[in-house]
Order: sequence, then structure tokens, then C-alpha cells
Amino acid sequence: MNIEVCFSPQSYSLFHKEGAVVVVIDIFRASSAITTAFFHGVSKMIPVATLEEAAKYKAEGFLVAAERNAEIVKGFDLGNSPFGYMSAKVKGKTIAITTSNGTMAINEARNASKVVIGSFLNFDVMVEFLKKEKKDVLFLCSGWKNKFNLEDTLYAGAVAESLIYKYGFTTSCDSTIAAVELYNLSKHDMYGFLGTSSHRNRLAKLDLERDIRYCLTPNQCPVIPILEGKFLVKHL
Amino acid sequence: MNIEVCFSPQSYSLFHKEGAVVVVIDIFRASSAITTAFFHGVSKMIPVATLEEAAKYKAEGFLVAAERNAEIVKGFDLGNSPFGYMSAKVKGKTIAITTSNGTMAINEARNASKVVIGSFLNFDVMVEFLKKEKKDVLFLCSGWKNKFNLEDTLYAGAVAESLIYKYGFTTSCDSTIAAVELYNLSKHDMYGFLGTSSHRNRLAKLDLERDIRYCLTPNQCPVIPILEGKFLVKHL
Repeated sequence: MNIEVCFSPQSYSLFHKEGAVVVVIDIFRASSAITTAFFHGVSKMIPVATLEEAAKYKAEGFLVAAERNAEIVKGFDLGNSPFGYMSAKVKGKTIAITTSNGTMAINEARNASKVVIGSFLNFDVMVEFLKKEKKDVLFLCSGWKNKFNLEDTLYAGAVAESLIYKYGFTTSCDSTIAAVELYNLSKHDMYGFLGTSSHRNRLAKLDLERDIRYCLTPNQCPVIPILEGKFLVKHL
Repeated sequence: MNIEVCFSPQSYSLFHKEGAVVVVIDIFRASSAITTAFFHGVSKMIPVATLEEAAKYKAEGFLVAAERNAEIVKGFDLGNSPFGYMSAKVKGKTIAITTSNGTMAINEARNASKVVIGSFLNFDVMVEFLKKEKKDVLFLCSGWKNKFNLEDTLYAGAVAESLIYKYGFTTSCDSTIAAVELYNLSKHDMYGFLGTSSHRNRLAKLDLERDIRYCLTPNQCPVIPILEGKFLVKHL
């Protein structure tokens, strides 16, 4: 039960391993929004890579979420703010979703044997899920336009630390060591630690402080979104 | 004077910026070997990407260094142990060199306006050089087979910290923030901090503890190797 952390979707092919569970992470905000959506009763989600694909689903009558550069793309129903997924209008629906980074990462990992969506919102159930799977785990950080980001790394480090110190998982991977060290540095004040980080500042400029605080609050939505074919569904 | 850190040669194109100085880092051991070579009187080095190119230089009568998986490739004169470059036989010579990671990184950065080779061995002179350049700086970590590694990151963080806190450089780059944090965690015992890292263990298995300790010792070789066309030379 080995753990690796991949800091960018661009590097996924270097880490792909038969049989590993891939945890896709986009804390600000796609993986937090997806976790929230399933907790609030969304039935299925269809992650798509491009706005063109998203527009096709829109034309077919689906609810469609489309975000670029942290804002809702004009003409679509939702963005990637988790708060958009707490309303009655999403309950029981199938929603297509495309975002700047998160859905691209899901797409990269599409051929993994199991792909789940991780966020602080489903922290404890994710640790429990991975512990029961007893498989190698790859944390795939979505980053920002293929660059490293801090918040995805902190989450990977947090889950990795639990798996290693409580449940006997191992690692010989420098990015996992770095993620765990950074998590330990940040854990008593993650919001403060991310104070100078690029994406927290990008969102703060858009007046999204409430989103940031919510996305960093553990265990608000104890559900595991899992990829089945082209659909994300709630793992039972 | 902005700082960025790129964790893998694979991601270089995301970071390329007109006018920036690129510091190529491969602490274990290519950038440490190259710094050592110039300090001990090597005249020029020719970094080449493949063993085929290296073999051509060998056929032409050059001294040739070729390392793969931390060992000297059969039929070549040197590897990337810094101790190989302290002998009289290299003095005044031009040496072609190919290594697993470092020369690949140099190759990626070839079109940057300025490329220098960084290691702990030339730490203070590197800080001084970058301060005088007054340009944007990109630290390009060679990593291990395009994956993140800790030792290159610690060096990037160490130099970045000096530039930011002493000389007014800035960053808005998450990988720079992470590198500086990791450096600060490690600085009182870098050898110990790297105890579980992948490459330190790889070298330890090959009985290269002496190399590891040497490569982590600052300011043994106060020279700056710089790329001029296809040659590395000593910056005057």
C-alpha cells in the first residue's frame, strides 16, 4: 500500500500505476464543489474537458456548470462555487461540469482502475475509504494551469499522513514527504498558511472569502464521489 | 525581480519567460559535479542530452562524462561524482557530459537568455550574482526522471529566501513558497531532513555517503558555471 503524490495533471503519465486508487484534488474549488453537490443530492455529474463539450450538454437540456479563471462562463448555469450546489434546483439532477483545472485532472486519470474526488469536506470518509481499499494510492493535484499549488498539496499531505501513521501505508516518494511536511507546518492555521498563496489571493480578489473558508473546513460533506464510466456518482 | 520555481524539466515551457535568469539545479549530483569541475580548473563543458551524442565526443578524443542511474556508463571517463573532477587530469580540459537528469534540464532551458548552474557548493556567489543581475529568476529543478525531488527544492528555497528577505525580490508562486518553507524546516539538519528522501537513499545504497555530505556543504567552490552557446564556461 504505497502512496505517491503527483503535483500536476501534466505529469500524470509518470505516476500511472495499474490497480492504484487515484484521488483527484482541486480544493479551490472543483473537488469541493463536486463533494458538496453529491452531499446535497445531485444524482450524477459528467466531467468534461472543454467548453464545446459542455455546450453540447447544455443544448441537450442538461444543467451545466462551466468555470474558467474562477468565474462562471456566460451562458451556463453554475460555476465551481460549492454554494451553487446547495440549492433545491440541483437535487436529483445530472450536471455536466467543466472547470479550469479539476475536470482536466479527472480526464487525465480516466484510465485508472478507480478514481475518487477528494476535498477537506469529505476528509474522514476518504481516509476510511482508502484504508478499506488496501491499494496503492495516487493523489493527483489539479494545480493551476498545470503548475503546482499549495492547497491541493496540503490536502494530499493530510490524507497521506493519516494513512501512513495510522494505517501502515508507506511512501518512498519525495513529493509525498514534501506534502506531509507542508501539511504539518500548516495544520494549526491552514487559512493563515495559505495567506500568500496564489489561488487564495486570486479568489480573495473576486470576493470569495466565504468559499475559501468553507473549502478548508473538514467533514462538512461525508460522501465519496467516484468515477463510473463517464459519470461521477456517489459511492455507496 | 520575480522568482519562480519549476519542479520538473517537463514543466519548463510553462515557466519560460523572456529575460529571466534560469538556475539549473541537480544537487545529487550533476550541478554539484559541474561546479566542482570549474573550481578545479576544467576549461569548458559541453552538456549533451543523449549517450549517442556523448559517444560522438568520445570518438573525437574529448574527455566524456556519462552517468545513468547514478553510475558511470561503461566506456566513458567520468560520472557525476564531484570527486571525479578534483584530479589534475581534468585541468584545462573540455569535457562533454550527459547525466540522467541535470543535462536534460540544461537542455530544456537552452533558449533562456541566461542559464547558470546552481549548487550548495557555490551558494553565496550565486546569491551575489543573482542580486547583481536584477532580473527575474527561475529555479529549474532537475528532479528525478521528471518527478519532483527534495534536495533540488531545498536549494531553490534557500537561494529564494536570501533573495526575497535580503534583496527585495518577490514571488507570487506557490512552488517558491513551498520551497522556502521546506528549506526553513530543513536548514538546521539538511542531511537528516533528507534521510527518507528517495535520491539520498538511492545514493546511500551505492555507498556514496561521502558524495551526499559534500554536495550539501555550502561554499566549497565559489564559481558560477554559465551557458554560452553549447558550452558551459566559468563566469568571470
